[in-house]
Amino acid sequence: MNGWLKVVGLGPGPEDWLTPEARRDLAEATDLVGYFPYVDRVPPGPQVRHASDNRVELDRARFALDLAAGGRRVAVVSGGDPGIFAMAAAIFEALDDPAAPAAWHTVPVAVDPGVSAMQAAAARAGAPLGHDFCAISLSDNLKPWDVVLKRLRLAAEADFVIALYNPISRARPWQLGAAFDALRDLRAPETPIVLGRAIGRPDEALTVTTLGAVEPSQADMRTLVIIGASHTRLVARADGGTPWVYTPRHYRG
Amino acid sequence: MNGWLKVVGLGPGPEDWLTPEARRDLAEATDLVGYFPYVDRVPPGPQVRHASDNRVELDRARFALDLAAGGRRVAVVSGGDPGIFAMAAAIFEALDDPAAPAAWHTVPVAVDPGVSAMQAAAARAGAPLGHDFCAISLSDNLKPWDVVLKRLRLAAEADFVIALYNPISRARPWQLGAAFDALRDLRAPETPIVLGRAIGRPDEALTVTTLGAVEPSQADMRTLVIIGASHTRLVARADGGTPWVYTPRHYRG
Repeated sequence: MNGWLKVVGLGPGPEDWLTPEARRDLAEATDLVGYFPYVDRVPPGPQVRHASDNRVELDRARFALDLAAGGRRVAVVSGGDPGIFAMAAAIFEALDDPAAPAAWHTVPVAVDPGVSAMQAAAARAGAPLGHDFCAISLSDNLKPWDVVLKRLRLAAEADFVIALYNPISRARPWQLGAAFDALRDLRAPETPIVLGRAIGRPDEALTVTTLGAVEPSQADMRTLVIIGASHTRLVARADGGTPWVYTPRHYRG
Repeated sequence: MNGWLKVVGLGPGPEDWLTPEARRDLAEATDLVGYFPYVDRVPPGPQVRHASDNRVELDRARFALDLAAGGRRVAVVSGGDPGIFAMAAAIFEALDDPAAPAAWHTVPVAVDPGVSAMQAAAARAGAPLGHDFCAISLSDNLKPWDVVLKRLRLAAEADFVIALYNPISRARPWQLGAAFDALRDLRAPETPIVLGRAIGRPDEALTVTTLGAVEPSQADMRTLVIIGASHTRLVARADGGTPWVYTPRHYRG
């Protein structure tokens, strides 16, 4: 009985952003559990692969805890950082259930951090997260839309840079437009917007636009959206491409 | 003239959290520029080392751009993620100066993301950043203290998990206490607090306490402070140690 459960952050995609810790834990695992595109990212090996569909995080967590309690070495794989809008919280939710089997509470658990999507998008864009910022999931599957709107308004009042996860999907087509509309009441039309689509993947795309001009159709479910603070600025690139976006460290208020 | 400038995130400390991209760029650099404890972390090699003291970020950025414009391959090293309260913003501030030499604008620049301190602390603690959160630097060197207080109050009203960077130093001894006091007016005394000190380093220490009980003296300049949201919870660990802290993905408002 040497089972364990590690929640492993794969980073945004490329091997180049996978930590040595995550690589080692994937190699030592007997079982890989996760959303199928993440399981598919792990290089071929002897591990048993348990790939599942999206939005079954709690079922997946319970399944992984069962496997580990039975003596398996289980890597629960997450894109980005498992602690940021990913699988780590679901594992602890499962453990925190009063009906959780006693055996789950004997499983050694660890979390391997990774580079999250907002960091990848920020790195490609320059340094838009260079000052105080917040990260909000735009999904209203797990919280009421009123809470999302309230947080967006308070974040704008606080003049945070705002990173939006889960901006849009087929099942949630209007929320990103509503978020932009809410922010247009509170921030200048010139406010820089970064759209980082699948950053780190072969089809990555970086768009820099403004709050006045951005359209929700420019984002998809693989896009990370960053909305600048009042002092976020643009700088020309040496190669004449998409300008750099950065938020200065200084703030005069 | 094949100079370049890369802002390289070293992560929180261990080799295990250094990305392959960062490792390669450090190896290919001719010059390392940075705050001396970060330069000291890079394994011995032929690179020329330009270590400087803290709080001279803009001077360091200009020096690095001069070197790169002169044909050197310059790695500007940062702890954690260079885009989060670190060196990347300083590089773009230097480039954005109207008095910047024209040669600086010909330098190829890139940013290598890394695991930031809040992610390391969160991973060791469980998943405290599992829901909407914000990151605030408590330093009032670069912004007025009133702005910090306003942001803390709005973040509490928004019910964000709050990660505090730069919580305390010899030159800023009272700000963390003032921040806890401001939050005590707005959040319950039972609110979980995570203090992650030097996480990833040999002397790392994790403390879990509450907003009612925490003392500023429990933190130092190497500590990352996480303040839970209203629904952040504790779960017992298998080994009976410091409890896990996590913030559920669901929020009822």
